[in-house]
Amino acid sequence: MATDMTAELIPLEGIPEIEEGDDVAAVILASAEACGVDWRSGDVLVVTHKIVSKAEGRIVSVVNDDEYRDLVEREAATVVRRRGDLIIAQTRHGFICANAGVDRSNVAAGKAVLLPLDPDRSAHRIRTRIRRAVGRDVPVIISDTFGRPWRRGLTDVAIGVSGIAPIIDLRGTVDASGRELRVTEIAIADEIAAAADLVMGKAKAVPAAIVRGIEWPLGPGRATDLVRSAPEDLFR
Amino acid sequence: MATDMTAELIPLEGIPEIEEGDDVAAVILASAEACGVDWRSGDVLVVTHKIVSKAEGRIVSVVNDDEYRDLVEREAATVVRRRGDLIIAQTRHGFICANAGVDRSNVAAGKAVLLPLDPDRSAHRIRTRIRRAVGRDVPVIISDTFGRPWRRGLTDVAIGVSGIAPIIDLRGTVDASGRELRVTEIAIADEIAAAADLVMGKAKAVPAAIVRGIEWPLGPGRATDLVRSAPEDLFR
Repeated sequence: MATDMTAELIPLEGIPEIEEGDDVAAVILASAEACGVDWRSGDVLVVTHKIVSKAEGRIVSVVNDDEYRDLVEREAATVVRRRGDLIIAQTRHGFICANAGVDRSNVAAGKAVLLPLDPDRSAHRIRTRIRRAVGRDVPVIISDTFGRPWRRGLTDVAIGVSGIAPIIDLRGTVDASGRELRVTEIAIADEIAAAADLVMGKAKAVPAAIVRGIEWPLGPGRATDLVRSAPEDLFR
Repeated sequence: MATDMTAELIPLEGIPEIEEGDDVAAVILASAEACGVDWRSGDVLVVTHKIVSKAEGRIVSVVNDDEYRDLVEREAATVVRRRGDLIIAQTRHGFICANAGVDRSNVAAGKAVLLPLDPDRSAHRIRTRIRRAVGRDVPVIISDTFGRPWRRGLTDVAIGVSGIAPIIDLRGTVDASGRELRVTEIAIADEIAAAADLVMGKAKAVPAAIVRGIEWPLGPGRATDLVRSAPEDLFR
């Protein structure tokens, strides 16, 4: 490490293609062991939703673009915007994203991957399994890749959390000048998901990473805490 | 390091309060030396815009909320949304953010900090100074903390870049299954800014960090490459 305060982004490599019924926690534990990575206090584990969805059987057949479009409509609770083939929708969980989170990349031809039914619960299950195996309570973030208004390019965000509050609430704290902070809520779980993506990549088969050495807020939190309520959202 | 592929987030500590005319690159170089941090090939330097703005004299007096509101209106090229005291505006650079980027936190009472006039140029100047001092070409990202539609909490994003293409274009590449990637553009500069924020924090006086050991795209790029053009943006 360069300094005592240096944080690390540790990719968990060698994770094989996941199929329905596979035990994601076991695969992650095996990868960490094979990579020589121990589990430390303060670690956060980030897992891309795709391997979770696959293990949970959230894969459906999609033979053509029409079927794909129908599937997106079915997965959408509300359509927020539509332009040509692009649908921005709110999912039943509450997340707003393109195509209601239905994705045809990194899955066999003729298939599409849906979001986990309850990503917080998926995160909780992985966390529990790891705690039992290694005796450490490591918070887990399930990530997905979302677009956003105004800014080009996609970033990874948190769609499931367990053991970590997804938002740091700075209300009442003061800055280095003693002035109360105007910026009061930091989306720490999204920043952690984005950081983990830096060692995962989209075309590489690295679906999990450990973020080590950062401060994060303990808490029960749910990933939907990161979703603005409709009345406070100026852009739906 | 935990594995060969592990990346590091290295906070540059001990940077003093910056004032107009200060040499930000010199301060960063001194901090790295004091922290025992060498500069390596592949490093990316992230600097929060606030110290750049202060050094460039982008500070103005604001005696009350009315003056602050007037200042925001002057800094805004276009107002995108308005609700109560909150103004979401596009700045002259093209960024869309709250209060046109005018900020009263982490600055002396009665003052507000504006965005740098040309953050890409600020990044370029710092990069050039570091290259001359240490003989390494380290790309520089100037970051700011932005909110976003749909999701609560703020994240750090890139508002200035030099030596790094802010977007990875994956068009034409295939995923691990051989399928062409649907996700074609990754906002790598925003993910790097968010990662760096994990070791900076809002209430701490850590305004710069080195991100080490990740892959990033070489390129001329400008930070406004990250801004969606109005016609392709469904949410203005």
